[in-house]
Amino acid sequence: MRKNFILNKAIVFHILGILLVFFAISMVFSLAWAFYFDEKETINAFLWTIGLTLIPGFLVWKFTPKPEHDLKVREGFVIVALGWILCTFFGSLPFYISGAIPNFTDAFFETMSGLTTTGATILTEIEGMDNGLLFWRSFLHWLGGMGIILLSLAILPLLGIGGMQLYKAEVPGPTKDKVTPRLKDTAKILWQVYLVITIFQAVCLQLAGMTFFDALCHSFGSIATGGFSTKNASIAAFNSPIIEYLLTAFMFMAGVNFALHYKALSTKKYLLYWFDKETLFYTLVIAFVTIVASLMIALRGDITSLANLEESFRHSIFQVVSIMTTTGYGTDDFELWPFFPQALLFIMMFIGGCAGSTSGGIKGIRILLLLKHARIELRKLVHPNGVFVVRYGKNTIQPEIVTSVLSFFLIFMVTFVGASLVLAALGLDLLTAFTASIACLASIGPGFGTVGPTENFAHIPMIGKWVLSLCMLMGRLELYTILILFSRTFWRH
Amino acid sequence: MRKNFILNKAIVFHILGILLVFFAISMVFSLAWAFYFDEKETINAFLWTIGLTLIPGFLVWKFTPKPEHDLKVREGFVIVALGWILCTFFGSLPFYISGAIPNFTDAFFETMSGLTTTGATILTEIEGMDNGLLFWRSFLHWLGGMGIILLSLAILPLLGIGGMQLYKAEVPGPTKDKVTPRLKDTAKILWQVYLVITIFQAVCLQLAGMTFFDALCHSFGSIATGGFSTKNASIAAFNSPIIEYLLTAFMFMAGVNFALHYKALSTKKYLLYWFDKETLFYTLVIAFVTIVASLMIALRGDITSLANLEESFRHSIFQVVSIMTTTGYGTDDFELWPFFPQALLFIMMFIGGCAGSTSGGIKGIRILLLLKHARIELRKLVHPNGVFVVRYGKNTIQPEIVTSVLSFFLIFMVTFVGASLVLAALGLDLLTAFTASIACLASIGPGFGTVGPTENFAHIPMIGKWVLSLCMLMGRLELYTILILFSRTFWRH
Repeated sequence: MRKNFILNKAIVFHILGILLVFFAISMVFSLAWAFYFDEKETINAFLWTIGLTLIPGFLVWKFTPKPEHDLKVREGFVIVALGWILCTFFGSLPFYISGAIPNFTDAFFETMSGLTTTGATILTEIEGMDNGLLFWRSFLHWLGGMGIILLSLAILPLLGIGGMQLYKAEVPGPTKDKVTPRLKDTAKILWQVYLVITIFQAVCLQLAGMTFFDALCHSFGSIATGGFSTKNASIAAFNSPIIEYLLTAFMFMAGVNFALHYKALSTKKYLLYWFDKETLFYTLVIAFVTIVASLMIALRGDITSLANLEESFRHSIFQVVSIMTTTGYGTDDFELWPFFPQALLFIMMFIGGCAGSTSGGIKGIRILLLLKHARIELRKLVHPNGVFVVRYGKNTIQPEIVTSVLSFFLIFMVTFVGASLVLAALGLDLLTAFTASIACLASIGPGFGTVGPTENFAHIPMIGKWVLSLCMLMGRLELYTILILFSRTFWRH
Repeated sequence: MRKNFILNKAIVFHILGILLVFFAISMVFSLAWAFYFDEKETINAFLWTIGLTLIPGFLVWKFTPKPEHDLKVREGFVIVALGWILCTFFGSLPFYISGAIPNFTDAFFETMSGLTTTGATILTEIEGMDNGLLFWRSFLHWLGGMGIILLSLAILPLLGIGGMQLYKAEVPGPTKDKVTPRLKDTAKILWQVYLVITIFQAVCLQLAGMTFFDALCHSFGSIATGGFSTKNASIAAFNSPIIEYLLTAFMFMAGVNFALHYKALSTKKYLLYWFDKETLFYTLVIAFVTIVASLMIALRGDITSLANLEESFRHSIFQVVSIMTTTGYGTDDFELWPFFPQALLFIMMFIGGCAGSTSGGIKGIRILLLLKHARIELRKLVHPNGVFVVRYGKNTIQPEIVTSVLSFFLIFMVTFVGASLVLAALGLDLLTAFTASIACLASIGPGFGTVGPTENFAHIPMIGKWVLSLCMLMGRLELYTILILFSRTFWRH
């Protein structure tokens, strides 16, 4: 393992070079839409950006030696973190060069929000944007979503981070301590699932009445649990119950472990979903909060009216799934809901979806393990010499994994509190400060207060936007991947 | 150890009987004040209560066999929990019988708030109360404060709860697995310290201009980090900078480990305070928040005016110490402060003072250990095979203790969230729900929103008051002491 921690700069640059080349190529789709809609500034901005990204990427790729050894753990960390930051930088150029987002901080924030599948926006007038740029925003979600599935199922399990060790054997492929071969196999499998669901969803949305363009953008936004819409009013703008139910279903799917999707879809054993404890937990939480919210909202109107009941249920399940999966799409202003479902939504922001999905937050499996551990701690008090183990399904969870999940929870809370305090220091009120930071840390998008579902992040002071960008990055990369870069020992030879 | 968990009902009843007898006797002081002020209803109420408490207590004491063995661990749990609840019940009778608090839920809440040194009140017109009852409220603080010091330094260390194992050797006395001898020795020593500081403070407060009655009540309220005042406007009513500075100093003292006070005062080695990491941490947090608050408040006025500077500093340090020690006395409405110090106060509510003091919250030492652990977790990522230990001063902290602190943190947060959700379900807004529960769980008193420093808990729905009473009890008894009673295995033979 020790050897794995030698940092080979050449290999890092080499892979980052390749990454940038592919990232530049991925912009072609947005460029195509800009041509289609004949958007001059945007075409210009994309051409410049592609050049500015492609050339350094290509040069670095070609002028660094082809790696002779497999990727090592420490290199993996640096590549993931730097890669994400570089893509955010280059990805923000179309917004900045086209003049659509004239402030670079804003452009960076918006791109980070896209790539981390957060969906927090600084745009006040979304429908005034060029379509090429709107497509790019949503496409960033899609790229980021795939990146995160790969990261959580192929890389993090090898690093023993925050309980992700549990997923070592989840996806077929070599589980040796080498990243490359595993990454390739896993990537191939998961891309397929991801792509199939995306296309299927886009077709459904188009059949339900969306334009092809909107169908694609919202398909990207929900499979990645992102939340960027092409409309100012988010999903409410379509005013279509069918679209709302469809998106609810697809967001729900996106919040489930993609390795499980792969297994269930490839073997056609759909009962696998039922037997997966994390999926069950995730479903039960959503069901409980939906029932509570539906009832309490329905009670404000005529409880005997079917239309009122249906609408209450539809808004509730949409909003609950949207927050639990950390997507952030909106059909209703949940700040006008009764306080109990509001408080439940706030807590759900911390929980998030399942590990190995595109959703953020602490994740279902960690919460489950924490709750099981808490119960065992109480039992230990009664039987101080008894031996208790946390069980998950049929497996016994090793104490190291439980400790590592406890530590993740701790570090998550410390980061949350730290970011909230900085925002409060910048003059944001308590509710806004504490919810803006969790909204970004758990890659949700909207929070409460002045960053609520009908508001946006435009008014946050510049430093705040950088802090929140860092939160999005940290939350998305499961904290450790970024925190480790701040550790002195990491850089020592 | 196994044998220690046999529950002997006779010994439990016997000791609870003795407890009630002493509790009844302790009411004599309040009765005396009621006589002094010639308060008929209150005299009547106390006579009834003393009788109602003394008789069953005495009968149970005399008609259960004298225990032949030392107190066992499981019995300790039951006695502490039941004893606290019984004292709250009998302690609430004077308020209820006198008619001063006509609703029993309110009387129970007020008494629980007293005995747990919380200081949350349902009284809207404090100055209209009889003095005998006001004295009783404050005296409840004093009794509870002593109880909690004993519990945390003599009993909990033996049970291995939430890191309190660290204090096994803190106080002289046998550290065997038997509670009684240790309890007696520790109690004797700590009563002395507690009593000396209380009297000294009462004298100081009287010299500073308080009446003897007020001086005693506020001395009880601050040594126990309780927070009940005899005035509607709390400490602001005295309008005396000297009194504010004095109370600040004594609250600060009350937030420090009493075992440390004993060591430092008995050996006259005052440098011990400086070398104690937890006291240092506690002091540094207070200093930091005081500086931030003073500056931001001063900046709202004339920054060149000495009077403005002094007043900003005085209000800041008073409020910061009052919250950090979980006392809850007020001289200023901190909800009108800038948002940054407000957010810092909110976070301080979770931290609390030092272990072994009368203050509540998670406690300094646990926070310190958690932060140290978080740092080590990051180092482990870089050196997966390295061996790291958490150090505290010169000692190495065993991993079990770290895990047990992590679990405490987890269970604290779960309880906090659970209680907040119940309050939100009862219709309280988010800020009120989430701060009322921490204000009670950490035994502070005031929160934010409709339970802010200028408000009270009168408007909380009845169920909410019972939930908050449970929070106060759980928070005060370090969670486990109560939670364990809900465990089935605990009651199994």
